[in-house]
Amino acid sequence: MAEAATAAAARAVAQRPPAMRWWGWGDPTHGASLPQHALRFLRETVGSGAPRPPVALANVRLEPSRLRAEVLAALRGVVGADAVSDAHGERVLHAAGKGYPDLVRLRRGEPEGAPDAVVWPADHEQVAAVLALCGRESLAVVPFGGGTSVVGGVAPLRGSHAAVIALDLGRMGALLELDRSSLTVRVQAGARAIALESHLGGLGLTLGHFPQSYEYVTLGGCAATRSAGQSSTGYGSFEKLVLGVRLAAPAGELALPALPATAAGPSVRGLLVGSEGAFGVISELSLRVRPQPADRSCEGVFFESFAAGLAALRELAREHALPDVARLSDEPETRMSMALAGGGAGALAARLYLGARGYGGGCLAIFGFEGPAGEAAQRRARARALVRRCGGLRLGAAPGRAWLRSRFEGPYLRDELLTHGVMVETLETAAQWSLVPQLHRSVGRAIAGALSAGGTPGLVMCHVSHLYETGASLYFTFLARQREGEEIEQWQQAKRAASDAIVAGGGTITHHHAVGRDHRPWMAQEIGAQGIAALQAVKAQLDPAGIMNPGKLLPSP
Amino acid sequence: MAEAATAAAARAVAQRPPAMRWWGWGDPTHGASLPQHALRFLRETVGSGAPRPPVALANVRLEPSRLRAEVLAALRGVVGADAVSDAHGERVLHAAGKGYPDLVRLRRGEPEGAPDAVVWPADHEQVAAVLALCGRESLAVVPFGGGTSVVGGVAPLRGSHAAVIALDLGRMGALLELDRSSLTVRVQAGARAIALESHLGGLGLTLGHFPQSYEYVTLGGCAATRSAGQSSTGYGSFEKLVLGVRLAAPAGELALPALPATAAGPSVRGLLVGSEGAFGVISELSLRVRPQPADRSCEGVFFESFAAGLAALRELAREHALPDVARLSDEPETRMSMALAGGGAGALAARLYLGARGYGGGCLAIFGFEGPAGEAAQRRARARALVRRCGGLRLGAAPGRAWLRSRFEGPYLRDELLTHGVMVETLETAAQWSLVPQLHRSVGRAIAGALSAGGTPGLVMCHVSHLYETGASLYFTFLARQREGEEIEQWQQAKRAASDAIVAGGGTITHHHAVGRDHRPWMAQEIGAQGIAALQAVKAQLDPAGIMNPGKLLPSP
Repeated sequence: MAEAATAAAARAVAQRPPAMRWWGWGDPTHGASLPQHALRFLRETVGSGAPRPPVALANVRLEPSRLRAEVLAALRGVVGADAVSDAHGERVLHAAGKGYPDLVRLRRGEPEGAPDAVVWPADHEQVAAVLALCGRESLAVVPFGGGTSVVGGVAPLRGSHAAVIALDLGRMGALLELDRSSLTVRVQAGARAIALESHLGGLGLTLGHFPQSYEYVTLGGCAATRSAGQSSTGYGSFEKLVLGVRLAAPAGELALPALPATAAGPSVRGLLVGSEGAFGVISELSLRVRPQPADRSCEGVFFESFAAGLAALRELAREHALPDVARLSDEPETRMSMALAGGGAGALAARLYLGARGYGGGCLAIFGFEGPAGEAAQRRARARALVRRCGGLRLGAAPGRAWLRSRFEGPYLRDELLTHGVMVETLETAAQWSLVPQLHRSVGRAIAGALSAGGTPGLVMCHVSHLYETGASLYFTFLARQREGEEIEQWQQAKRAASDAIVAGGGTITHHHAVGRDHRPWMAQEIGAQGIAALQAVKAQLDPAGIMNPGKLLPSP
Repeated sequence: MAEAATAAAARAVAQRPPAMRWWGWGDPTHGASLPQHALRFLRETVGSGAPRPPVALANVRLEPSRLRAEVLAALRGVVGADAVSDAHGERVLHAAGKGYPDLVRLRRGEPEGAPDAVVWPADHEQVAAVLALCGRESLAVVPFGGGTSVVGGVAPLRGSHAAVIALDLGRMGALLELDRSSLTVRVQAGARAIALESHLGGLGLTLGHFPQSYEYVTLGGCAATRSAGQSSTGYGSFEKLVLGVRLAAPAGELALPALPATAAGPSVRGLLVGSEGAFGVISELSLRVRPQPADRSCEGVFFESFAAGLAALRELAREHALPDVARLSDEPETRMSMALAGGGAGALAARLYLGARGYGGGCLAIFGFEGPAGEAAQRRARARALVRRCGGLRLGAAPGRAWLRSRFEGPYLRDELLTHGVMVETLETAAQWSLVPQLHRSVGRAIAGALSAGGTPGLVMCHVSHLYETGASLYFTFLARQREGEEIEQWQQAKRAASDAIVAGGGTITHHHAVGRDHRPWMAQEIGAQGIAALQAVKAQLDPAGIMNPGKLLPSP
């Protein structure tokens, strides 16, 4: 049976969030990690500028808070005196997510705005009470979990309202219930993925959700944005993990119990998952967990081309031999990885080994297998045999280890590149297998073309990050020298070109970064005018005053 | 790449639907199959009445069609003169689905009503034009696929409208596109599951969807009702097969392309799947297919108790060793199967075999495994080892063959039982593993209690029909002597008791029969007042005049 979590277990999961750099990503004590030879490689390829560190926090300019003292006092009356702040530092920390334009603006000390206050409710009831107050006072509400959105999902937009608050779920991190028989947990939505995973590990369980933002991201944020993680080919993207949801909407509570399956009409669960704070605040979640895998491995495979690798991935899907982690870099990304790995002995050995076998260019793949002992071993063996038949060359566990070591490092590297005047951005899509090769080419060309047209030719690379029976996702990374003073315009041109190419090529505008503000212009092409109208009707019902996260997800009616 | 289907392929799938008994289930030429000993067993246990065959078709009483001649002519102007009918026979054939109360009323010659006309559009554009006409003329529209609903989903209710038409998708059965690379097909929504499966078989592919209504059901109907089939533990229920949908709604078209995955906001796909004709008419679908399994087997296993069997099923889920077909009968259903199998040599041998091993009562399970050669064999071997550890006794392939032979016979048997004055009804739910044992007991008791209270003590039996990582479905069958002249009240009492017990026990009101009219009173408990309000808002947007399938799915606003 389901058991209420003990107070100790609830507390163990409800750690306060770790500190986060206000101007960039992650742990403020994290050191630089971009090696000199990598910087040299970038200078030679895309160029770089003079180092440009972020301004000092005190120099970040914010408009004064618009909140009247009575309103601040009323908010404090709901959540407690120490759970509301309009201090400069907190407002800056909640002024933006972690997208490229966010960081450009923050580093300059010029965020587009900031919430007029930050509010930390403790539970569903406090969230509901805050929403009621915000409705009465015409305050826009931006739900704020880990604050890791890269698509403007937590931008402090107030729309037509008097002011805007960030509703930080940092105090709502408790484990509420554990059902070992059903393999489910119930948590407050502000619980961090890393804290829950760590607690589950002690119980021999795992959630299995590892987005690149893993160290900061909240489970509510994962649900609200349809997150996918590095093991989601095996564990399923976050929507597959959500069995029950509790939403605090301005119109009232919407609670869906945990069910393994149902045919009771259209999926209301599917409406709340991916709602990005526009319908209300996800306050609690019931999630599927799994036993810790008894067997776990991660290895590298080399394919002579991206096309050959794609064909092998498709066969793995067809033969029910999918790895749990499956990544296939294209030729440019593979070259870049080698260059970043530098002249070390390992890279040299790899190049010699591959050269001896006639692999000049080629593409690196990482395959991770985990699961119950017999199952994972048998699947791995079938996958290996199939990969061999498809021309793949096994490189052993070293590339797997290297990837595992560095898999959360990307955002730290981005900060360093920004300091050196290099723009780096990522974007992603998914499409049916038959469309993937052409989509890979057309999106790559669109980005490269936009960068060149702006006078800053760049590097564009890509990897397949998630596999499905009928298709796969593509994850693009691009770098270019920043156009100083025009960083945002430069980014917008590349982003727009990529998004247009994605939609034209039959891909989804986003496979796992969500919609936020940045993908909103393409939503009508994704779901059509009636799809937009249907979701707007849901919003009008659940959030009649339109206070929830305005300017995100859906165009205004 | 996706290829448009050839005209021959399109036609091959678009067979006209097979004939269907107007008063019951299936092929009018199907003979009686209830053996004498089974009838004797029923007489001895629940009792039975004097044979009561259905009335003659000509004696079915209908009110005259409410459609004015001009409106009939206008409908004919849209779809063609021979694609509209208000003939008595067609109206009777579209007067109800195939639920127990439907059959009771039809056999008496007293359906609750009938559509004022039946209309057969040929494509999406004709559907849209018919809906526009119906909006102008205040005609309610009941989308009609296979007509197999057992929950009142196709009841010809006109709500507040002037009249009601059945929109039969029988002319919309074409295969539109085949994408062998992505393993997807695009079909018109009126295509029959059996016709598509047969065509795919010739191409080495399968959809893998086999509900008990398989021989008649349309793919659009499966999507609109979140159908599950006998192999859905392996292939996934129908919602997992739907990648793209095209809906003709009174407000306009809603088209969602086929995507393997997306994070672009709330799932509009999930809103259309399960919409039961209340938002519009699903006109086209993109569906996932799979290669035909190279390996396929089906076998029986005996457990000493339902509890022991449940524990084994849960372990199979936990260890990633789930069969594709997984059914576990409880003790009463197992006894009933043995009794129906009668005194044949096979049944006798089975009983002797089990008796020799100390199995007196016990429970029969059927496990089917299919998939790529190595995969299915390895999974079967792991499952067998696990079942053995859990105390399961393998019975070999004979019970599997027997089940496969008779798996679409249930509805035919029901007709025979009705002729003998025996009520038989089925209902189903799903819940988390931790709730399943208690739910099995409480729902069983509720049904038995209601039958006894009405003076007709019955037989109540159950099997687990679909497995998930976090839970399972329960499928109840009950029989009792009909209370002559009060058949509907008798049914209502049992149905209400069962539904109340399901919701009270944490189960979903329906795992795969859908909501229709019969489960509508429990929807508010399933998704809450705000869940209802959100779906009503979607309906108001897509179907502003409320002409689509009134009285189903959602309470009236």
